[in-house]
Amino acid sequence: MGKERGVTAVKPIKITDTTLRDAHQSLWATRMRTEDMLPILEEIDEAGYFSLEVWGGATFDVCLRFLGEDPWERLREIKRRVHKTPLQMLLRAQSLVGYQHYPDDVVREFVSLSVKNGIDIIRIFDALNDVRNMVVPMEAAKKAGAHVQASVVYTMSPVHTIDHYLETATALAELGADSICIKDMAGLLTPFRAYELVSLLKKKLGIMIHLHSHYIGGMAVGAYLKAAEAGVDVIDTASVPLAFGASQPPVETVVRAFQDSDYDSGLNLRNLFHIANYFEALRKSRGFERGITRISDMRVFEHQVPGGMISNLVSQLEEQRALDRIHDVLNEIPKVRAELGYPPLVTPTSQIVGTQAVLNVLSGARYKLVPGEVKAYVRGLYGRPPASINHDIQKKIIGNEKPLFERPADNLEPGMEKAKRDSLGLARSPEDIMSFAIFPQIAKKFFEERKNGIIPNSEIKTAASAVKETKAAKEIWTTG
Amino acid sequence: MGKERGVTAVKPIKITDTTLRDAHQSLWATRMRTEDMLPILEEIDEAGYFSLEVWGGATFDVCLRFLGEDPWERLREIKRRVHKTPLQMLLRAQSLVGYQHYPDDVVREFVSLSVKNGIDIIRIFDALNDVRNMVVPMEAAKKAGAHVQASVVYTMSPVHTIDHYLETATALAELGADSICIKDMAGLLTPFRAYELVSLLKKKLGIMIHLHSHYIGGMAVGAYLKAAEAGVDVIDTASVPLAFGASQPPVETVVRAFQDSDYDSGLNLRNLFHIANYFEALRKSRGFERGITRISDMRVFEHQVPGGMISNLVSQLEEQRALDRIHDVLNEIPKVRAELGYPPLVTPTSQIVGTQAVLNVLSGARYKLVPGEVKAYVRGLYGRPPASINHDIQKKIIGNEKPLFERPADNLEPGMEKAKRDSLGLARSPEDIMSFAIFPQIAKKFFEERKNGIIPNSEIKTAASAVKETKAAKEIWTTG
Ligand SMILES: [Co+2]
Ligand SMILES: [Co+2]
Repeated sequence: MGKERGVTAVKPIKITDTTLRDAHQSLWATRMRTEDMLPILEEIDEAGYFSLEVWGGATFDVCLRFLGEDPWERLREIKRRVHKTPLQMLLRAQSLVGYQHYPDDVVREFVSLSVKNGIDIIRIFDALNDVRNMVVPMEAAKKAGAHVQASVVYTMSPVHTIDHYLETATALAELGADSICIKDMAGLLTPFRAYELVSLLKKKLGIMIHLHSHYIGGMAVGAYLKAAEAGVDVIDTASVPLAFGASQPPVETVVRAFQDSDYDSGLNLRNLFHIANYFEALRKSRGFERGITRISDMRVFEHQVPGGMISNLVSQLEEQRALDRIHDVLNEIPKVRAELGYPPLVTPTSQIVGTQAVLNVLSGARYKLVPGEVKAYVRGLYGRPPASINHDIQKKIIGNEKPLFERPADNLEPGMEKAKRDSLGLARSPEDIMSFAIFPQIAKKFFEERKNGIIPNSEIKTAASAVKETKAAKEIWTTG
Repeated sequence: MGKERGVTAVKPIKITDTTLRDAHQSLWATRMRTEDMLPILEEIDEAGYFSLEVWGGATFDVCLRFLGEDPWERLREIKRRVHKTPLQMLLRAQSLVGYQHYPDDVVREFVSLSVKNGIDIIRIFDALNDVRNMVVPMEAAKKAGAHVQASVVYTMSPVHTIDHYLETATALAELGADSICIKDMAGLLTPFRAYELVSLLKKKLGIMIHLHSHYIGGMAVGAYLKAAEAGVDVIDTASVPLAFGASQPPVETVVRAFQDSDYDSGLNLRNLFHIANYFEALRKSRGFERGITRISDMRVFEHQVPGGMISNLVSQLEEQRALDRIHDVLNEIPKVRAELGYPPLVTPTSQIVGTQAVLNVLSGARYKLVPGEVKAYVRGLYGRPPASINHDIQKKIIGNEKPLFERPADNLEPGMEKAKRDSLGLARSPEDIMSFAIFPQIAKKFFEERKNGIIPNSEIKTAASAVKETKAAKEIWTTG
């Protein structure tokens, strides 16, 4: 094969490394510390990656809440060591790196500060594929000079047709996206579906397409192969000690798989193994598990509930001493999801659907107990659901109240002035004010501990306790 | 996609289940017992597999040597419960299920008894792809009425070109093979190479092509995809609790991956999960590990040494308190392999090359110590190496002695009469005599214990002790 094949043009596949963000978020409860990252950064920078996803998602929250680390400082420390490869972050659209929608002034300022501190590429997604929630962050990213990567979240439902993705992606391209990401957070994208979707997107939009998949049930390498044949530009992988299972496919496999083809990435396996050795030593020293595929992960093919979400459901049920109801909950989830208009199961809608399903099963009466975030969802405070919410269920939850028709953030008061005021005497920088604007209590505690010099910077959690701690804090019930 | 695609004809992929042979040989040191298999057989029989690989390889030896089980009785018990799906075995050509070449009369009788006891499909391979070693077993299988599946062992070297495989496969087809198996025991076959190889074989031979790959570094699902597009007929998988790592890819992934395509297998995921639950419970009850991909497994892409072989090298070195030399040994293996004419690393040549490499490193002088099986290999007693053996090395090992030019078994005296004589009073059946003909000492011990009623039929080994025991017995140093 190789260059003499001649049927297709030589088109090396580009690769993004997620080891420092999504991989440890998916496998290690986001517990990699800045000090763990720094020694290997120069080597990763030399490897030839398209970009390094190192920031955003749950990392911001976990830095402040559990690691006693300033997330902005982490970003600057990384930037200081990475000179060749663009740094990438994941942004939850109007929710930024949090779990609710923030006012536009906070969104604009956050994006501006992210770029100022070192981010080159901003991947933006909205859990409902509600394009209105992506307008302001995209504008802000564009203005700050970043590469704007707009995502379509991939899921399966009667309304998530190929046309839905094409229309959404077209709208995002028209909003000025520099590239489109297909975000397959549950590893549901089959290889032949990937081929179809990427082909159509390339044909219709002609811009760079980036495929983000999770290993989970094991289809991602196949999806990447067929996506490459359809013209995908970039794919996401992780170093093997942080690959597989709930994380991304291993870079080493993908690099080798493409070596016999016109898509050869050009990355060097020897270098990649050297990097992998570093992370394997780190993994062992912390007692973190590898990514593995259990039957429960495979079952995503049946019920579409990602493995990470299942383990959170298990924790919730254990707390209630009701683990024997797990199968009832797994059967309830698709019903709740349908009734709520088929939201994709990604942060924060995975929590919304999951919590309601648990309550429906445990309370013995469906929608008898409805938590605040489900009410907020039905009120339209997260945006427009992909399909209509079941009328009876809606009535049960919010009565005759009319759901919000506008973009949720249109109803929010500006937040920066208040954050500045309330963080006075604690915040030392615009970045501190921003941390406070997003997570006021957590940031306040962090600032106070920092002032008193009791930041637990050297306290290394064991894997088991870290994972347990994260599950207990329902705000970090992240999927994606 | 699906049936309306129209570009290619609908061609469902057929699937062979290896759970009861290769999968537990690769992951559990071949320690699944007959009693573990029986309760789930009817369900597996209903699943819609093309065939079930349940016998041969290392299972015969391990039954007699470690499990106190009669391998023939296992086969009959399986056959009694499987009515729809053909039973398949792996035969090491003239080495049958052992580690040396046996005389033709033993080969013919073994094949005849295998079919008589329930085997429908015989997969035959020679470690050196020396077709001469496959003639007698193929003839015997044909005569016994079995489906004759002849294998080409896949490896990488300057002489293992696409033409080498085409020529070998053509010769096997001319010998009457009903199908050709591409046997990729180290998971080295890249997806695009698989496409090329299968396309050419289908075009040239027009007969059924079966692809057997191991997961190891993670390319197998991709290889299966591209092989399907090239027209492969059957692929090998295992139930998820016994898949991944050194074993086959999981059937669940493959079934799901093809569902969106013209290659949809038609197998039902719900049924497959039900079967997987059975094996997961078995796995846990025995304390056996899952298949996982470590960096050491990934390195197969660099040095081509399969993970199973590495763990055996590690054991050998640990015994010698020389584990720190593992990297020297891994660097030595490709040199030894080249000097010995590039044998594929599969039973028994993986042991031949591995042992010599260890001795070369530990003795401090290359080929100063040469074990008997390496001498036998150089003398031609395993057949013709793929390339010439290095002249100086050959001289060092066997001096001016001329290597065998003929087929190794041409020089062997018939063995059945002697086996009958020597097993008199112990053997109760033609099958017993055959067990004795292949493994005289082990069979004798088994017969005596059976007579005295001290067969350890209920003794369940723990996973760790079983694996250790197997590694200590160098004869079960199996790869493939
Ligand atoms: Co993700
Ligand atoms: Co095998």
